Amino acid sequence: MKEADVVILGGLSGISAGISCRRHYPDKKVILIRKEGTVLVPCGIPYIYGTVGGPEHNVIPDGLLEKNGIELIKGEAVGVDREKKIISLSGGETVGYEKLVFATGSGPLIPPIQGINKKNVFPVKKDFIYLANLLNAVDKAENIVIIGGGFIGMEFADECRKGRNVAITVIEALPRCLQNAMDDEFCDEAQAKIEETGVKIMVNEKVESILGDEEVTGVKLASGNELKADMIILGIGAVPNTGLAKKTGLELGFRNTIKVDRYMRTYTDPDIFACGDCAEKVSFFDGKPVGVMLASIATSEARIAGANLFSPTHNNCGAISVFSTVINERAFAVAGLTERHTKQTGAEVVITTAEAPDTHPAGMPDSTLTKVRLVFAKNTGIILGGSLSGGKPVGEMVNVLSACIMHKMTANDIVKFQMGTHPALTSSPLIYPIVNAACKAVIPLTH
Amino acid sequence: MKEADVVILGGLSGISAGISCRRHYPDKKVILIRKEGTVLVPCGIPYIYGTVGGPEHNVIPDGLLEKNGIELIKGEAVGVDREKKIISLSGGETVGYEKLVFATGSGPLIPPIQGINKKNVFPVKKDFIYLANLLNAVDKAENIVIIGGGFIGMEFADECRKGRNVAITVIEALPRCLQNAMDDEFCDEAQAKIEETGVKIMVNEKVESILGDEEVTGVKLASGNELKADMIILGIGAVPNTGLAKKTGLELGFRNTIKVDRYMRTYTDPDIFACGDCAEKVSFFDGKPVGVMLASIATSEARIAGANLFSPTHNNCGAISVFSTVINERAFAVAGLTERHTKQTGAEVVITTAEAPDTHPAGMPDSTLTKVRLVFAKNTGIILGGSLSGGKPVGEMVNVLSACIMHKMTANDIVKFQMGTHPALTSSPLIYPIVNAACKAVIPLTH
Repeated sequence: MKEADVVILGGLSGISAGISCRRHYPDKKVILIRKEGTVLVPCGIPYIYGTVGGPEHNVIPDGLLEKNGIELIKGEAVGVDREKKIISLSGGETVGYEKLVFATGSGPLIPPIQGINKKNVFPVKKDFIYLANLLNAVDKAENIVIIGGGFIGMEFADECRKGRNVAITVIEALPRCLQNAMDDEFCDEAQAKIEETGVKIMVNEKVESILGDEEVTGVKLASGNELKADMIILGIGAVPNTGLAKKTGLELGFRNTIKVDRYMRTYTDPDIFACGDCAEKVSFFDGKPVGVMLASIATSEARIAGANLFSPTHNNCGAISVFSTVINERAFAVAGLTERHTKQTGAEVVITTAEAPDTHPAGMPDSTLTKVRLVFAKNTGIILGGSLSGGKPVGEMVNVLSACIMHKMTANDIVKFQMGTHPALTSSPLIYPIVNAACKAVIPLTH
Repeated sequence: MKEADVVILGGLSGISAGISCRRHYPDKKVILIRKEGTVLVPCGIPYIYGTVGGPEHNVIPDGLLEKNGIELIKGEAVGVDREKKIISLSGGETVGYEKLVFATGSGPLIPPIQGINKKNVFPVKKDFIYLANLLNAVDKAENIVIIGGGFIGMEFADECRKGRNVAITVIEALPRCLQNAMDDEFCDEAQAKIEETGVKIMVNEKVESILGDEEVTGVKLASGNELKADMIILGIGAVPNTGLAKKTGLELGFRNTIKVDRYMRTYTDPDIFACGDCAEKVSFFDGKPVGVMLASIATSEARIAGANLFSPTHNNCGAISVFSTVINERAFAVAGLTERHTKQTGAEVVITTAEAPDTHPAGMPDSTLTKVRLVFAKNTGIILGGSLSGGKPVGEMVNVLSACIMHKMTANDIVKFQMGTHPALTSSPLIYPIVNAACKAVIPLTH
């Protein structure tokens, strides 16, 4: 039997937890067990189908484990004996542990639509060979239907169209695509951008059944219409991989995620931790469970878990939810709460907007208009969230907002922000839009 | 005699102060007085000579004043009667005020070098016609000598070479270019980048005299060598425009800047405020005067001054010094203290570095390696500064650092940072370099 001080089960956040553990406890032996031969960059998966050109260009090199002295066992953990502290693998091998980390991630949600098991219906699995097969199907397809107009669906639509003569339709049940993520104006902007490419978006629409004999030939919609399709991609959400956790007797919480405390320790067993998509998340804002699954949160939790294994070091402030995407060359990003979120809770807020070219003067090359929308709590002036659209810099501007939110800055704080500016890199200091939106909030907040 | 509740003297930061005043005191009459017909984007000036192609593409539109209900008087203020609260202009007109703001900015430092007044020696003045003449000279030049290897000098060198067959030499007195701004490794990287373009950098070298009869023909160096030159650009620093302030009896402080309190009110007169390059700055870190002049600080001070005119609203936390530049397509940026700064004060620090491609996977288009270097206070773990080099996102990553510094975040805080990431926009969440550098600091900080 192999033994280690720390055993980690999982992919991306497992690597992050392992590195954090190595940093804090350099003398501990760490083993990572996973069944996948190769770990893919999860957020890079849609880009396999256009920009990067194949799953082989979207892998996380195992050198990262080697460099950090983490032993890799490729195998499937099928049982955990918590009393004896032994993990059993599907091949019969066993591995002993002192501390165990569940970083088992998530898989695609497969809805109970009639015909969902037909050939060429593709939930997005994080599996190298499977995704290579998906690429073959995309390359042959003439009509692609994507079910779900969230990030995954929109990014797949945008990538699949690149360099191909293919009809793509996205079916979204809600009134707007990306509606769970962004406020209306950004949803509308994103939809207009993707429609420019020829991708068709159908909102307020559902797939009732998938047509065809063995293979997909089309979909029947709730509205009664039928659409031709030679493949279907599912982008309607993810479910945690917590089968083994349940079998191990770990308490599960919200949507079958593993219940953890602020140190990422499971409720059930002080020697077992969990992080990433398989672990329950609570909101930064109100401490209530939230169903968000993001690499930014997963890796943050993994760093916390790895550091806490043998001694409480960091605690988890809860999920802020910071993310970005690119749709037809325009970037969209959100940190924290949108107006929609605050309406759901009835919170009193002040919302301001600002826009500015992301160079100055605007005549500098590749200048793009940045739009910003900030949400402040009416009573305290504390920033609760911000949304952006614009060019490449939006990917880091949302991290400026993330820092502001995490440290509960107020509109007054942001007014005084000393942002570095440069003609080729940022908006003018006169109209830098994050600051400008905060300036506009100061007076409304006091009235 | 004209009269206004608020009179502002100056350019860029004057506009910012005016807009802030308008926002906080919508009923007040605001007049801005300046002698320049056109206000240029100050940080855009080097880009006139390459990327944007002329001063007409680098102006701040006066529409910004109109839109904010700020009256513009083009004229030169030559006297202030503080008792009667009246400003007199060079043409004999007078303007009465209740509150007065000095936002008179800075001009180029002109060193006492022999021959400095010859034709074709160009200090960089913020004057439209003058800069158009400078463009004519650059277009005709075969040999340009730039005195000073700071930001202005390096940006001018990089821009003047674009699309021209011209020999450019930058003369820097210190051992490295950009040495007052950045740590050695970034200075060296910047020098290597500019040298790739054919620009020559001479360090540890001084211009002893400027050669030629009426017009420049060359320079004589302290080392004894001579260099041919048909024009010289001076980039060795700036001095505050505080002649009128002095004449008005306002107390001047560090390097002849106007002494102000944390509300941007002058020490001398409660109805007179000052902001921007003409106002004294103190360091965010130790409260001592600092000689830094940056648009980011100037506009932040202007927002504070404008808001405080009739009632204390914001106070100034002091200058963090956040800036960025681009040298031969590579961005460099610093927020707060460098290692060199901390060595000067003998502060005990922990310094860590990290690097990562700014996309993930790295095979995404336009991927650029980002380098990060963070400085933490040994005793508290609080971040004191950070330096970056990389692609366009560096311009906003330095603002993430600015937010962290302004709110005194510790390495432990940054470890838990929930950064939004996206394949096309940022580094991988596994190796996001700001967080990664903070992770590396946690253990050294506790030992």
